[in-house]
Amino acid sequence: MKELAKELKVSVSTISKALHDSHEISDRTKKKILDAALRLNYTLNPYASSLRKKRSGTIAVILPEVADNFFSLAINGIQSVAEKKGYHVLIYLSHEKVINEKSMVAECNTGRADGILISVTSETSDGEHIMKLQHDNIPVVFFDREFEGIPVSRVVTNDFESGYLSAIHLIDKGCKNPVFLSISSSLSICNKRAAGFKTALIDKKKGHPAKAIVECKSGNSEMNSQIKKLLSRKNKPDGIVASVERLGMSLYLIAQEMKISIPGDLKIVAFSTVETAPILNPSLTTIVQPAFDIGKTAAEILFKKIEKREKILTEEIVILPSTLIERRSSQKK
Amino acid sequence: MKELAKELKVSVSTISKALHDSHEISDRTKKKILDAALRLNYTLNPYASSLRKKRSGTIAVILPEVADNFFSLAINGIQSVAEKKGYHVLIYLSHEKVINEKSMVAECNTGRADGILISVTSETSDGEHIMKLQHDNIPVVFFDREFEGIPVSRVVTNDFESGYLSAIHLIDKGCKNPVFLSISSSLSICNKRAAGFKTALIDKKKGHPAKAIVECKSGNSEMNSQIKKLLSRKNKPDGIVASVERLGMSLYLIAQEMKISIPGDLKIVAFSTVETAPILNPSLTTIVQPAFDIGKTAAEILFKKIEKREKILTEEIVILPSTLIERRSSQKK
Repeated sequence: MKELAKELKVSVSTISKALHDSHEISDRTKKKILDAALRLNYTLNPYASSLRKKRSGTIAVILPEVADNFFSLAINGIQSVAEKKGYHVLIYLSHEKVINEKSMVAECNTGRADGILISVTSETSDGEHIMKLQHDNIPVVFFDREFEGIPVSRVVTNDFESGYLSAIHLIDKGCKNPVFLSISSSLSICNKRAAGFKTALIDKKKGHPAKAIVECKSGNSEMNSQIKKLLSRKNKPDGIVASVERLGMSLYLIAQEMKISIPGDLKIVAFSTVETAPILNPSLTTIVQPAFDIGKTAAEILFKKIEKREKILTEEIVILPSTLIERRSSQKK
Repeated sequence: MKELAKELKVSVSTISKALHDSHEISDRTKKKILDAALRLNYTLNPYASSLRKKRSGTIAVILPEVADNFFSLAINGIQSVAEKKGYHVLIYLSHEKVINEKSMVAECNTGRADGILISVTSETSDGEHIMKLQHDNIPVVFFDREFEGIPVSRVVTNDFESGYLSAIHLIDKGCKNPVFLSISSSLSICNKRAAGFKTALIDKKKGHPAKAIVECKSGNSEMNSQIKKLLSRKNKPDGIVASVERLGMSLYLIAQEMKISIPGDLKIVAFSTVETAPILNPSLTTIVQPAFDIGKTAAEILFKKIEKREKILTEEIVILPSTLIERRSSQKK
């Protein structure tokens, strides 16, 4: 460290702070010191470093629920990487409550995990708790449900494009009044999908762009009554894109109950990786996210950060595309 | 403690060992000392006790996978209890590998969790790792998939009875050659369901009891090729009970691929809590386990043990019944 301090004409304490990524040191200075350190093959004293932050051999995954098939596939992807690294994976379910998410994040900051993968709740409206983690040198990577506007690496899918594509698909199949069902207006993946959907209606001059996005609250009974209201109203939709799997399943169950024929009276497209899509009645047109690969890639980025003990890696954004698979639920009359 | 020792005419060290549940002290003596301690309102010195075993405020759930709807509902049940207690729930997925299960159990024995809920893998063939946990004073409760023959509390469903009922149902619907698809011959829930199924065939003098249980390996591609073989063989079944949800879904997908008509050529009943059962093509007859309540009850028993810091509670066995819900997949021609 002394050698480094001499070379760069700064104090040893500045070097130490910079290498430990202290917020007292400017990013420009950090970069200068880090570059020099790499050039001189400088490594942190491993013992001192392990005192600062003991490795737990564990990564944590914080996500809203596991009932959605997307998340169970993503977990498999994460676990495929962790297994190779000899790491355990701890799973925390936030159940869409930001208060849970915050308390789980805080718990991970007690040495319990070496890094965190997060898919945020539909309530999460600030990123302070996540930034605090990164500040304390615990790397974080978002997968799928990101919180925007903070410098955290993320692996997502092409949500805007997929939303756009889903609207074009319904228009092509003859829908005059397609609607996009969102579960939250604070969830960026929903907003991007919705924005893509709306943009397509405007581009194609179809439907009612201003009224095309309908938000459903996440509680199950409320969700169902909102869907029923939507399907009974005067100007009811003839095509619906469900922004998440759960909404797609609810739509099917309610349509069956209300004796609404799919795709005759109502065409449905769902963002979903559910393996039963081909055996549903009727088979379901899905936009399939590469769930396993999203989890796997996010875990790979996380381990890169853990192994480098470095939080100030460039913010990495990986976009893995989704695929529309056409089935009977959106067929033309 | 001295007072207690005087009253019971034993040494202070015996009292201490008994209250810390040492294996050096007989159960009879422990009970005597515990009763006296409760009578005298004796409480362990909280500091000494916390030194011995620091509370982590966390319980761990070790289970094979979350893709099965049963497990995601059971987790919700567990979490409903933990939330009230202010506890976090850590989820470990063993992915049906006993080597994972053992390493997760060992990790939980490092102060990471105050108690463990386990649903064992289909490979688990001994209970030593679980007994070691209990020996080290970390309470364990099995939910659904138990390992038999060791004194661990468990919350299960009426598997034998449900297996019996499923066979009677297929016989009533006219099946001449019903078969039970198992995923493992070392998994007690599968064996009990299978035994019930076989017993019904013997009682009713129907089918071929000796050949009625078919085991499918758990790997997905192997599973599929075994199912295809079963559905193509000379003496192929006209009715199948799927012992787990995954097998039911695979059966549907393969029948669709092979153009086998359900229920015309093949009737299907599945052990499953899948919410899409009514919207599958055709709607699926299910044996629905009370998944949420199984998780909830198991967690309640676990917290009782955690709060009493007592491993030698009577082994508690709770059986919550399942329900057969008849739908189109098992309908008479």
